[in-house]
Order: sequence, then structure tokens, then C-alpha cells
Amino acid sequence: MKAVGLVTEYNPFHNGHIYHIQQAKAVTGADVVIAVMSGNFVQRGEPALFDKWTRTQAALANGVDLVIELPTFYAVQPSHLFAEGAIKLLTALGVEDVVFGSEHATVDFLNLAKQAPSVQGGKAFQEKNQTFAQAYATQLESETGFKLEDPNDILAFGYAKAILNLNSPIKLHAIQRVAAGYHDQSFTDDQTIASASSIRLALHKGKLEKVKGVVPNQTLVDISSANHTVDFESQFWPLLKYRLMTDTIGQLGQVYQMAEGLEHRLAAVALGEPGPQSYQSFIKAVKSKRYTFARIQRTLLYTLLNVKVDQMQAAMQDPYLRILGFTDKGQAYLNGAKKTTTLPLISKVDQHLAKANLRLDFKAGKLWQLLAREPDQQQDIARQPIHFTQAHTKEDK
Amino acid sequence: MKAVGLVTEYNPFHNGHIYHIQQAKAVTGADVVIAVMSGNFVQRGEPALFDKWTRTQAALANGVDLVIELPTFYAVQPSHLFAEGAIKLLTALGVEDVVFGSEHATVDFLNLAKQAPSVQGGKAFQEKNQTFAQAYATQLESETGFKLEDPNDILAFGYAKAILNLNSPIKLHAIQRVAAGYHDQSFTDDQTIASASSIRLALHKGKLEKVKGVVPNQTLVDISSANHTVDFESQFWPLLKYRLMTDTIGQLGQVYQMAEGLEHRLAAVALGEPGPQSYQSFIKAVKSKRYTFARIQRTLLYTLLNVKVDQMQAAMQDPYLRILGFTDKGQAYLNGAKKTTTLPLISKVDQHLAKANLRLDFKAGKLWQLLAREPDQQQDIARQPIHFTQAHTKEDK
Repeated sequence: MKAVGLVTEYNPFHNGHIYHIQQAKAVTGADVVIAVMSGNFVQRGEPALFDKWTRTQAALANGVDLVIELPTFYAVQPSHLFAEGAIKLLTALGVEDVVFGSEHATVDFLNLAKQAPSVQGGKAFQEKNQTFAQAYATQLESETGFKLEDPNDILAFGYAKAILNLNSPIKLHAIQRVAAGYHDQSFTDDQTIASASSIRLALHKGKLEKVKGVVPNQTLVDISSANHTVDFESQFWPLLKYRLMTDTIGQLGQVYQMAEGLEHRLAAVALGEPGPQSYQSFIKAVKSKRYTFARIQRTLLYTLLNVKVDQMQAAMQDPYLRILGFTDKGQAYLNGAKKTTTLPLISKVDQHLAKANLRLDFKAGKLWQLLAREPDQQQDIARQPIHFTQAHTKEDK
Repeated sequence: MKAVGLVTEYNPFHNGHIYHIQQAKAVTGADVVIAVMSGNFVQRGEPALFDKWTRTQAALANGVDLVIELPTFYAVQPSHLFAEGAIKLLTALGVEDVVFGSEHATVDFLNLAKQAPSVQGGKAFQEKNQTFAQAYATQLESETGFKLEDPNDILAFGYAKAILNLNSPIKLHAIQRVAAGYHDQSFTDDQTIASASSIRLALHKGKLEKVKGVVPNQTLVDISSANHTVDFESQFWPLLKYRLMTDTIGQLGQVYQMAEGLEHRLAAVALGEPGPQSYQSFIKAVKSKRYTFARIQRTLLYTLLNVKVDQMQAAMQDPYLRILGFTDKGQAYLNGAKKTTTLPLISKVDQHLAKANLRLDFKAGKLWQLLAREPDQQQDIARQPIHFTQAHTKEDK
């Protein structure tokens, strides 16, 4: 069976994702669609709107055959590490083609990556009031003439770099993004495709009617019945403030991605008198031009999860393929891949795994439950992959 | 001026406390009443119902002349350390008499303390399924014939031991407790004095009418207008669960009073599937016969405050006299005491103190604010002692 790989967050699953799946099959002629999907937290450092099981269900109901969780230590990372993690998993699964949306689908990203400056020396050319990504893009443009600034292009570039680094056989296929820009914050009633962020924004404003035209039926079902984190900030902020007020500066300084004395600023602002009254005003107060919003938010999430540098580095050395769900076709593909894959395939998480390799995903799942005020729907232990069939859905036994 | 010292929590201030103040003056002929009062957390490991400023105001409005905060590292402790901290502060203030309620006011507690077994060897005689206090009381009874089991007697015994340990000149005066037992959970409409715990319980049940007969006017004002922590458990539990799910066992094991592998049980129960749904059910699940409810709750509070053994031991070596409020008479007494006291007198807390000596009180104040959902009323920095006069009340400048 020929499989095509997609790198996804499905936050939430919408019509653009259906188009992506259809195009992926059309472009590659694949029989099986495999999605590597962020778990309960996404690349921006936020909780996913719906938990990983709900999003897996939506993906399987709309054409994906196998959903593999992108572990938290890859998923909540700058784009190059996010992309490398996803390519590593897809390579281990024997996937030979990856199809992705891009703002510039005619660009040969693999060729671009070959010409690109090394990241290693990156720190040297980062100017004051400039993010690292901006500095890198400036240098890349001066060497190649291509301006790397659109979010999907940046991810595509990350896939290409990963393929080179990992010596992966994966071939990249860009499809032109249509209709909705990644950062678009609104959409019109006659659109059938809208960006995930504009959909989340509409849901945040309670505009359910508006969303109906741009998501499939399963997502509508989830919106009306599944637990979600639309207003996660109201829960996130007291927990973060609590963490910042009770940990020592020394403890905070060991958190992953806590750089350049940021821990001092975080603690000083959080404990200021009077301190910020909301998560948004807190981020605004600690943000500087050297860091993107997403970078700050990821660091805050790692602070909240109490993940130290050494724990993170150890975790990243030990990846795995966590199976969230499959169709019959996906299951058949898995049976073949089992024999050849170089990474452990995990379909069930017990107490031991939750304390070892999968500790970060387990903690992230527990935190997601807190943020979604959802005490009952356990995220990991005792959950079975979803076995989706057209007739009905069941947990695989 | 002759001062009498009281050791208090005022949680909340009620008519029994007025009786205590009147008796203290009558018994000793003192001009000035000094209360050492727990700050934002009380000995049981719970947040005080009202913050320390609100309770100071009530005390000053009802006969106390000077309120000194019992620092968190003394206030949230087993009774012998609580008592020793209070006696240490009162001794440093030049107080010569302490008046307290007791279930057995005719007992000479100082003499009892002199005959008592040493605490040092205590661990040896603690049997399985027995708290340390129970074991100690058994041995004390076999040596002296007195059964030390009532809560105010236990505190009185603590004062006496502290006087011996500290070689303090303080004389103890017991007054017989009347009307309300410490643990009484209810009171009748014709009672004018009720226990603090029964008053808290009535407030928890929303029975404001019932409380009117047993508290002075200032407390009624506070009940209707001040922020409180009557339902603190609903805030306490998510924070505690969050801490237990994100810290490593190693980190939890360093928490003050975390003994005999308790951290493993706390984490296992909190992260169980399904886990407890409330603070009460959590405590019930982790409680064993070797520990009192209060002991467990104090350990949970130290877990929440992230206070490690070494931090606590260092803090206890460095006490201070934090002034919360005074009347004119109290101020005059303070002016005299300034010249002779051996401990630092603190009337204002700045950022430096909040990070040094007073760090634990500062953290406790911040946590109290979170539990009371009170973001605005800062507890420490920039707060001035209350200068209470009959005509009006103002913050001292």
C-alpha cells in the first residue's frame, strides 16, 4: 500500500483539511492517508480547542486513515523542530510522500534548503529587536533571493531541512493554499474554506452560525457536545501566576527555552503590585521584540508544565509512534509497518509509560483536562486507539 | 506600661475573643493588650476566612491595642512550634503575662511541662496507627496522670514548654473556657459565644442570621463586605492537583513535612484514573491513622506553596515582628519596645523584604488572594499598619 503523509494540528478540523486530504491523494495516487497530528497542545503553545481524541475522530470521519500523535516535545516547538519531529515519525512509518499547503507552491523547498545558511551560526547575526526567524529569513533572502515569511512556507522549509538532516527518502509536494490565509481573522458567509484561527476566533465570539459553512458535520457535532478550551486563558492565567509566585527564580531558570534571564521578568511582572489581571495583559507586558508571541507562549506553557531543559533534551532523544486512531485501511497499513519501523509503536499507555517516555504527553493531557474543566475524559491511561468504520465507531479492543 | 499577650487566629473574630480580652485585662491588670495573630493561613493549614488586615481591624475595634503577625513559618505548624513561635515574639516585645483559654484552667501547665517526657526521643514510642500527639499524650499521662487531649490544653502545654526552652520570663494565666468547645460544630440561638469553627461552618452553609448573635459588629460588616475564603476548597484543589501533576516525585519529596514517602501517595492519588473530584475526597483518600487531618493539610499547603525543608529551616532561624496594626496605646507601647526588642520590627514590606525574610508570608498572601479570588487587595507590599482610633481608622503614614 502506498501512503501519503500529512503534518497536521486539526485545530479544529475544517473544510480546508478535507481539500488537503483530497489533493494529497490526487497528487500522489496514495491509497492510505496518514496524519501526524499535534496532541493536546499545539505549536503556538496553546491547548488544542478539542482534545486529541475528538480531533482524531473528526480526521478519521473525513478521509484520514491513520492518526499518529506528534509528541508534545516535538509539537510545542519552533517550526524547524516541529517539522523535523513530524518528518522523523513519517519516515519511520515508511511514508514516501508528504503533501502540504504553501503560500508559494512553485518553490522547490528541498533545493532552497540545500542552499540555505547553517542554523548553527544563527545567533551571531540576530540583531537587537529582531526575532531569530527574522534574522534567518534576511540572510536566506540575501543568499537565495527567496523571502521566507509566510507560515506555511516556513514549515515547508522545515520539512525540507529535516529531510536533508535525517537523510529521509520522503518526497515533498506543495499545493497552493487557496481562499484562506493562515493569519486571516475573518471570513465571509459564501466562503467554504476558512483558516483555523479565524474559525477559533468565531467560536470564541460565540458565532456558531458563521462556522457552519466552513467545517464538516463531525466538527459541528464536536462544537455542540465536546469539551473545549475556547476560553482557556481564564484557567491558564491563575495557574501560571500561581506557578510564577511559588517557584524560585532558580527553578524557573531551568525551564526549557527560558533564556536571557526571561524568568526574572516573568516573575517580576506576575508578582508586580498591582499585577496584570489577565493572561493577555501579562503576555503583552513581558513580550519584547526579540521574541515572537508564539515563542513566549511556548515558554509559558513549559513553565506551567514544569519542564526542565534536561528533561526535554532527554525526551527528544526517545521518540515513539503513538497511535490515536485508524480505519480498516489504516490498520492494514500499520500491520505492515510494524515489521519495518525503527520506532516503538504505542497503542496503549499504562502507568509505567505515563511515568517514563510519555510523561510529557501525560502531563499535557492532565493540564488540558484542567484547562477544559473536564475531569472525566482521561487522555492517556486506558484509552484505546479509535477504530473508525463507516458503519460505526468503537474503541479497538 | 504593662502589657498582656494573647496568642490568636481570630478566624473570624467573635464574642469569645472579646471575653478573652476582658479577662486578660482583669486577670493581669494590664494597660495594653497585644495579640500575636496568624497571618493569611492558620494552624490547620487553611487560608484564614478573612485576610490578616480585615482580622486586625476587627481585633483593634474590639479591645486589642497591637497586632503582630505570627509569621507563616510559625503559624502553620504543629502546636508546639506554633506555641513556641508566639512565645518567642511576645517575649521579644517585653510581654510578661500571657492569658489563654483552657479546658482545664486549674492545671499548672508550667509544672506539667517540667515533668513532661522529652520530645527528642518521641519517634521511638509512636505505634502503628497512632499519631505522634497521641503517643506523646499516652506517655505524658503515664508519667503525670494528666490526659493532654483538648486542643487549648495542648496549646497551653506548648506555651509552657516554650517558656522553659526559651528561658522566657512570661507568666501563664489560664482562664476556663466557657460555653463553646473548640470542636463544637453548632450553637443555639440563645448562645452569645460560639466556637470559631462552628461560626465558619454556619457561614459556609450561608446561615448569616444565625451568626449575628455570636460576633461583634465589625465581623458582621466583614461578612457582608470583605473578601473571604469560605469556599476555598474549590480553588485550592485545582491548584494542588496542578502542582502534584507537574512536579517530579523528587521535587515533591523535598517539601517541608513530606515524610515517609507521602509524596508518592499524594501523586498517585491525585493522578489516579479517575482521580478524586474534590479536595475533601482527595484528603480522605490520602489520610492515614498516623497523621491528623491538620497535619496532612499543612503538608498540602507547603506543597502548594512549594516550600522546601531547607528554606523552612532557614526561615525559622530568622524571625521578626511584623506590625499589622495598633491603637494609640499600642503605638505608645511600641515606641518603648523599639528600644529593647531583640527582633527586627517591620512596619512596611518592600520588594527586597518580600524576596528575603518575608518571602513565605508574601507567597502566602499571594496564594490567599488567589483562593479568595481577590486580585486587588495586596497583602504586603506597600501596605501600612492600621492605626485605629475610636473616631476613625486610617493607614499609618
